[in-house]
Amino acid sequence: MLPTAKIVNDPVHGFIRLPEGRVMAALSHPIVQRLRRLSQLGLAQFIYPGATHTRFAHALGVLHLADEALLSLQGKGISLSQETWEAVLLAALLHDIGHGPFSHSLEGSLLPISHEVVGTQLLQLLAKDIGDLSEVESLWKGTHSHPFLCELIAGQVDVDRLDYLVRDSFFTGVQEGLVGTERLIYTLSVAEQKLAIEEKGQTSVEKFIVTRRFMYWQVYLHKGVLGAEWLLRRWWEALQRAEEKPPLLRRLQDDAVAGESLEAFLQIDEATVWSWIQESTEARFPPLRALSRALLWRIPYKIHYVEEASQMAKKKEEWLGKFPSAAQPWVEWFWVEGTAENEAYKPTEGEDIYILTKEGKVCPLAERAPWLRGLSGPMKRFFVGGIPSASLESLLR
Amino acid sequence: MLPTAKIVNDPVHGFIRLPEGRVMAALSHPIVQRLRRLSQLGLAQFIYPGATHTRFAHALGVLHLADEALLSLQGKGISLSQETWEAVLLAALLHDIGHGPFSHSLEGSLLPISHEVVGTQLLQLLAKDIGDLSEVESLWKGTHSHPFLCELIAGQVDVDRLDYLVRDSFFTGVQEGLVGTERLIYTLSVAEQKLAIEEKGQTSVEKFIVTRRFMYWQVYLHKGVLGAEWLLRRWWEALQRAEEKPPLLRRLQDDAVAGESLEAFLQIDEATVWSWIQESTEARFPPLRALSRALLWRIPYKIHYVEEASQMAKKKEEWLGKFPSAAQPWVEWFWVEGTAENEAYKPTEGEDIYILTKEGKVCPLAERAPWLRGLSGPMKRFFVGGIPSASLESLLR
Amino acid sequence: MLPTAKIVNDPVHGFIRLPEGRVMAALSHPIVQRLRRLSQLGLAQFIYPGATHTRFAHALGVLHLADEALLSLQGKGISLSQETWEAVLLAALLHDIGHGPFSHSLEGSLLPISHEVVGTQLLQLLAKDIGDLSEVESLWKGTHSHPFLCELIAGQVDVDRLDYLVRDSFFTGVQEGLVGTERLIYTLSVAEQKLAIEEKGQTSVEKFIVTRRFMYWQVYLHKGVLGAEWLLRRWWEALQRAEEKPPLLRRLQDDAVAGESLEAFLQIDEATVWSWIQESTEARFPPLRALSRALLWRIPYKIHYVEEASQMAKKKEEWLGKFPSAAQPWVEWFWVEGTAENEAYKPTEGEDIYILTKEGKVCPLAERAPWLRGLSGPMKRFFVGGIPSASLESLLR
Amino acid sequence: MLPTAKIVNDPVHGFIRLPEGRVMAALSHPIVQRLRRLSQLGLAQFIYPGATHTRFAHALGVLHLADEALLSLQGKGISLSQETWEAVLLAALLHDIGHGPFSHSLEGSLLPISHEVVGTQLLQLLAKDIGDLSEVESLWKGTHSHPFLCELIAGQVDVDRLDYLVRDSFFTGVQEGLVGTERLIYTLSVAEQKLAIEEKGQTSVEKFIVTRRFMYWQVYLHKGVLGAEWLLRRWWEALQRAEEKPPLLRRLQDDAVAGESLEAFLQIDEATVWSWIQESTEARFPPLRALSRALLWRIPYKIHYVEEASQMAKKKEEWLGKFPSAAQPWVEWFWVEGTAENEAYKPTEGEDIYILTKEGKVCPLAERAPWLRGLSGPMKRFFVGGIPSASLESLLR
Repeated sequence: MLPTAKIVNDPVHGFIRLPEGRVMAALSHPIVQRLRRLSQLGLAQFIYPGATHTRFAHALGVLHLADEALLSLQGKGISLSQETWEAVLLAALLHDIGHGPFSHSLEGSLLPISHEVVGTQLLQLLAKDIGDLSEVESLWKGTHSHPFLCELIAGQVDVDRLDYLVRDSFFTGVQEGLVGTERLIYTLSVAEQKLAIEEKGQTSVEKFIVTRRFMYWQVYLHKGVLGAEWLLRRWWEALQRAEEKPPLLRRLQDDAVAGESLEAFLQIDEATVWSWIQESTEARFPPLRALSRALLWRIPYKIHYVEEASQMAKKKEEWLGKFPSAAQPWVEWFWVEGTAENEAYKPTEGEDIYILTKEGKVCPLAERAPWLRGLSGPMKRFFVGGIPSASLESLLR
Repeated sequence: MLPTAKIVNDPVHGFIRLPEGRVMAALSHPIVQRLRRLSQLGLAQFIYPGATHTRFAHALGVLHLADEALLSLQGKGISLSQETWEAVLLAALLHDIGHGPFSHSLEGSLLPISHEVVGTQLLQLLAKDIGDLSEVESLWKGTHSHPFLCELIAGQVDVDRLDYLVRDSFFTGVQEGLVGTERLIYTLSVAEQKLAIEEKGQTSVEKFIVTRRFMYWQVYLHKGVLGAEWLLRRWWEALQRAEEKPPLLRRLQDDAVAGESLEAFLQIDEATVWSWIQESTEARFPPLRALSRALLWRIPYKIHYVEEASQMAKKKEEWLGKFPSAAQPWVEWFWVEGTAENEAYKPTEGEDIYILTKEGKVCPLAERAPWLRGLSGPMKRFFVGGIPSASLESLLR
Repeated sequence: MLPTAKIVNDPVHGFIRLPEGRVMAALSHPIVQRLRRLSQLGLAQFIYPGATHTRFAHALGVLHLADEALLSLQGKGISLSQETWEAVLLAALLHDIGHGPFSHSLEGSLLPISHEVVGTQLLQLLAKDIGDLSEVESLWKGTHSHPFLCELIAGQVDVDRLDYLVRDSFFTGVQEGLVGTERLIYTLSVAEQKLAIEEKGQTSVEKFIVTRRFMYWQVYLHKGVLGAEWLLRRWWEALQRAEEKPPLLRRLQDDAVAGESLEAFLQIDEATVWSWIQESTEARFPPLRALSRALLWRIPYKIHYVEEASQMAKKKEEWLGKFPSAAQPWVEWFWVEGTAENEAYKPTEGEDIYILTKEGKVCPLAERAPWLRGLSGPMKRFFVGGIPSASLESLLR
Repeated sequence: MLPTAKIVNDPVHGFIRLPEGRVMAALSHPIVQRLRRLSQLGLAQFIYPGATHTRFAHALGVLHLADEALLSLQGKGISLSQETWEAVLLAALLHDIGHGPFSHSLEGSLLPISHEVVGTQLLQLLAKDIGDLSEVESLWKGTHSHPFLCELIAGQVDVDRLDYLVRDSFFTGVQEGLVGTERLIYTLSVAEQKLAIEEKGQTSVEKFIVTRRFMYWQVYLHKGVLGAEWLLRRWWEALQRAEEKPPLLRRLQDDAVAGESLEAFLQIDEATVWSWIQESTEARFPPLRALSRALLWRIPYKIHYVEEASQMAKKKEEWLGKFPSAAQPWVEWFWVEGTAENEAYKPTEGEDIYILTKEGKVCPLAERAPWLRGLSGPMKRFFVGGIPSASLESLLR
């Protein structure tokens, strides 16, 4: 356990200890402070008004769970050097620094690379200010000499998932998402260099998996949330088509060609995007104008799930019928269709959650809890949706 | 009770019923949707990272408590017409529409009028779209024919205070702020056209008052929060001095002279302000540049309370000593001083909280709970504070 | 909604309204007050020290949920007469009056009839004091003219199960048992005279089923709980064999022969049983002496689950080996074996939980959530266990 | 930190670690297991049906808070030997072993000595089985070489009070009693060998004091609770007058004369008392018969507070008027009067709560928070009450 520098009040986990040393340095760095201006759930707050929590608060939560997990493992005789302890906390705290604004909707839109790649580049930038971070990188990449620490940071039951499930549940008010993180952390262990859950924690881990499924349908793939996220995606597309783009966005895209875009990227947070939305309410390109207003006035696509792909065309036709003539030329902008998918649990050969029995055997969860197989394999649903025609006139005015 | 149109999940109160009719119309209106982009506690999230809740969520909470209060009064034989019931809900929902961005820090800065005056003007604007709102106005102004309804909306124990205490407590994680709103609502009654608390609710109302005091010192006047709010105030002052102002701000101020500023005002939310902060990090005026960065990088004034006003000068001198020479010309920008005040309870002749005894007598609380007098009268503390000198160099670069 | 007589504070549901009229009369009756001296979970408190909640508190909780359910149905246009409303509340409040002490362990031991039969007899006794209760009986027996009300009292998702899941979870501290009762109650509806859950409540009902399973393994069939319950059962058997029986027990058993045992039955609560345990610590019959002390000193059978019935014999042999010679003649008393079973969900033709879709169709849950099939069908496990031999000497002394 | 032997689930604090060694031995001892059969709040459950928590669960909670406090102090450089750490945990766990059944009502009735004296005698008994406990005794008596540890066990803000406030609040459902124990524990420190609260914990400690006051009036001195406790006291007096006393009670009282009563004392738990109540429902002495039934049927004295002692006589006269003639000879048994008192905070010279400022000064709380003086000094109220005359006939039958 590292010496405590500061204590922060977190509504989800209570008090969070922040250790002295490089964790504090990283936390104060502009690259991390920027996470205060990125929301965890983007436009899900259109449906769940309490869900305005940030990636910054999530990062603190992940740090906290990692610290608790190491404490618990220490109590079981698994001790680490101070350096490695600090590296694990940094790996937890920094795991999301590569995200841009509204990642659920716009991932890959600002920069043509994944948030993991951006993250690794930002880690190198950060290392210039706070010193070598190669152990953190090895934890992210899965090449650390203690593989179980890599799993703790990114695995089937990692501190990232544990925090976001319970945090998203807390802020949305969806009680179905509450997971006993405390118990799961208490029952973590290591067997054959793999992270394993002690037998007495099996129910907790089963509950964790079921909960993921519930949160998918109640929050992440909720029809209203989907409708809001698509609004943002389509607005972004419209913005690309517009003649006048925000100068910062142009700079980002020009720099990206030159391979030097990180600096502009770091200046674009969700406030920036909202200010672009605000500015484009009077744009000349009608879809851009309409979609900007729909975002500010909260008029998401009205989404329906359909049983088979074949029903999509019929739904669209119905919807087109009610359409005001002024909107006809832009009809494709006010309609979305696609598939929503989730997979709560995905056990494969050598890639399951492992249970450590009292006798010291390591068993894959899929074997010990066969009923969970009902949850494995992806669930897939087709959806369609449009902007309510009654609103279109004022949106296009 | 009005028929239910929709149910919203609120992490603080659970499910909130939204009634059919004009409440839904108001809720969907851009003037109310704008509250989604105003935070309830502004920069308190620099200290309490969970405290990112919005004025919109608060408005729903106030609506909910008002609805529960009317239900409870109905159970005690106090019935209202559907119109009045709806007016009370609207008065609750709309009570904060006049606020601009970061009201704790910038109230009166954007427009030279109070948020109440702006609110009344916006109410008239809203009435054009959803119909006459004069009953709502009478509830706000205290001229309604049922005075207890005015007290319910704005009084010593009103639904606004009840919601914000419990909501701010919930999102900051400061357990000291939890109030049994349910019990208080259950014990509301009316006596002699005044709102009164039944005897059995006296402890709850005592606790409500004590809690206000706790939340003042733990949150609203917390030194860190104060330091963050002053950062924003000073940044705003610096922005006024800068040569290049954001076009929208210039428009707002030009319009204000012409008395037509509401339209620009409505376009300025907290995202707008953050985008201005972002833009001014490269401003030519050094204090503006420094304060913008201090906001983005979270470097608030470091505040100290001092016992007497006379100590302020000495503290300032000490602080000036450590100051880097590059910052010398701008020293006044990086230093604040003033007084922080609060008054948890302020009973006066005819203006107290009233307790309704089992025998039907109405007693002022100050008489029944004399120990609360220790909480009446304002508490005042002097504070001083500066930007840490170690940060000044990079802020001014 | 019946007029409120009184409000009771319940840690699980908050405030519980108690209506004027016969509900208050029933509540004050000795037959109901007796439930204060019966625990809900018996000896589960050996494992979960907080789980000392009573059948009385549970009865209030069931009453509360029934009242909330009727309120919610009323909001959907399903209205009932005051008489029927009261009958439903009484049926809820009284549903467990037939239970004796430690029902999980001793059901059928005091009287050779089930708690349902005893309950119906007590209902007739109660009717002498508070008036006709035949409508309550029809709700219990499933013969009421509104079948959905019978399902609300005793069905797949009834107010009894809802309260005990959440209450047992609350008092044991097992977070896995928390169910969003509020949401489930809000989404109850009636279709074709059947109780149905509206589509938007499907996730909540899925969670309810999964939760039942979790609570079975974590609480109801927990190995420690099983070991404690078997202690009580075996002690009871030993008591029957003892020469000197408590006079009240003898009277109960003599009366039972004469068919007049209710009066004695009502005098036997859990305090009575504990006083018998206390008295029998010095009994002449060694197993009775030992088992009494084991109950007072908390030395339950140490239970193991085994994969197949065939392993039981081997386990027993191992255990016998460690046995002190003084205990040899009584060895069968200090050993238990059997099977533990549970079935979280049991959909059959015409006996499922029904979902009411937005289009007004009624669908069995098993069809809409096929993954739950993994939870249907009984789970069965073999167990064996003995009193730890180290304790036997002092138990038998 | 001692190595963990076992983890127990507590609904109030979550998981409680039980350390290896003598703590486990003490916990398993019959003297401690007996606490499972003593309730924490006695007959308060007549008013708060959830409040059935036991002294055993409270003892575990106190142990947990003591352990957390030592961990927190260790983090501040105050380290203790393993022996002393264990002694503190034992002192916490065992602090209530001297209590008999229904201590709030019957303290001093079974044995003519205080529970502290009984406790010390039982400690010596326990030492025979688990080894020397003189360090525990020194912690109880205030003679330990680290005085701050004595204050932690029994002082103005000790782990006993912290646990019972929050536990009683949790189980009664009275939200007013919730205290941020976690924060208080985090801010504990030691200055000049005294326990002190760090400056940043001052609000928490203020809240702790106010909360004590709230819990006094809402629970401990609640009129209904008072009425129930007096019922038990009066029943006990009537039992002493009865000709036939329970044999165990006679033995206790005979032994007490001979100075050898501990053995009988240990056999008398609350189940025993309830069985005596049950047995005395058919006693020949009418008040005993009536009061036994009143306990089983929950018919407490109906208590009123009066402003001045002089009003008591008048109230009694009124009440006597309604009295049925059959009860006349026993009238004094069905009437109680007295005073209820409480003192939430009692700072005296050298006996206050101390705040440790950032500058390292130690200040008495009374100086830093003068408003709390409104809470110091005892609050006193006169009360009177009788058994409702309508019930008397069936009670005396």
